[in-house]
Amino acid sequence: MRIPVNAIVFEDFETLDIMGPVELFGLLQEHYQVQFYSLNGGLISNKHGVILQTQPFKDMTVNQHSILLVPGGIVTFDLIQNQPLLDQLKTLALHSGHVLTICTGSSLLAATGVLDGVQATSNKMAFEFVQKLNDKVRWQAQARWVIDGKFYTSSGVSAGMDMTLAFIRDTQGEKMAQLCAEEAEYIWNCNPEIDHFCKVKAD
Amino acid sequence: MRIPVNAIVFEDFETLDIMGPVELFGLLQEHYQVQFYSLNGGLISNKHGVILQTQPFKDMTVNQHSILLVPGGIVTFDLIQNQPLLDQLKTLALHSGHVLTICTGSSLLAATGVLDGVQATSNKMAFEFVQKLNDKVRWQAQARWVIDGKFYTSSGVSAGMDMTLAFIRDTQGEKMAQLCAEEAEYIWNCNPEIDHFCKVKAD
Repeated sequence: MRIPVNAIVFEDFETLDIMGPVELFGLLQEHYQVQFYSLNGGLISNKHGVILQTQPFKDMTVNQHSILLVPGGIVTFDLIQNQPLLDQLKTLALHSGHVLTICTGSSLLAATGVLDGVQATSNKMAFEFVQKLNDKVRWQAQARWVIDGKFYTSSGVSAGMDMTLAFIRDTQGEKMAQLCAEEAEYIWNCNPEIDHFCKVKAD
Repeated sequence: MRIPVNAIVFEDFETLDIMGPVELFGLLQEHYQVQFYSLNGGLISNKHGVILQTQPFKDMTVNQHSILLVPGGIVTFDLIQNQPLLDQLKTLALHSGHVLTICTGSSLLAATGVLDGVQATSNKMAFEFVQKLNDKVRWQAQARWVIDGKFYTSSGVSAGMDMTLAFIRDTQGEKMAQLCAEEAEYIWNCNPEIDHFCKVKAD
């Protein structure tokens, strides 16, 4: 049976946050089955002209093997007030085998409390925001991505692809991760400690 | 007025081929307006679980400024036989200000004849296929992307993002391209002559 990759979206999600990892999992179709979900299902759009058909959260297959993908976007600054979304997200995160957040997707997770005491990172432009949001999270200021137990959290947008390849390596082996990067002709920035954008944003 | 970015898709399009460039243009919303189109409009899906709402080709704004984005995918091996699609694609390509193809998207364009005599590239795994398809195209075997007049053609999948940043640089300036890459925390492989995957595939 293929591992469920449950990609969640909401209005004004950041396109590449979710589509980068989806491409990489999608290239390994014999292992993973990607499906898109939103709180209530139906069409979800963003400012990039993307209009996606989704299923409702309640129809998601969540188990010890399933992978939850959580994108970010500027809209997460508002979504941290959306209690119905956060309540359901918390349940999904607690019951998924792995949770991968991209960019400010980690702010949503932080707002649910499931990252309390966990090492995590986020988009470097939103770093003050996430720190203020929940100081119980052990935020890492310089990291392209951070792994702590079942939680993989990445920096902004494109960092999600580098993190996803690391996740594939950790769970399926180095060879499969390399093959996946080659199929996508993606130049994998495979060292999580090299974070160019940390410096860019600090200047 | 914003420049129309007309992203075309078809059943089983490659996710990141189109979503990588869409993210980058989407980050520059004050300059570009991205919309998705398919031959007859409606919902278009692919094997990565993506189901996209699209408008029909006939509703596309095509002019000397508009940008046509053409993704690839294994399905293009079949689509080169789809004459109704190719006929319309030819008209769109001829009347668009710029045409950007990603991966085997260039095979579709080559099949229409509009690339005859034009320098172009494609996914390196599909290189024999595109060469056989149309030997009047001046195919470049080693290039992450190739520019010839209004045509920008890239290698596989992720190369589309590097090419899109080059396009933004050429048309809006270096500063905007760099800003866009930083916003996406994308490590821009900005030299089109460095093509790691050319070697990978030749081994």
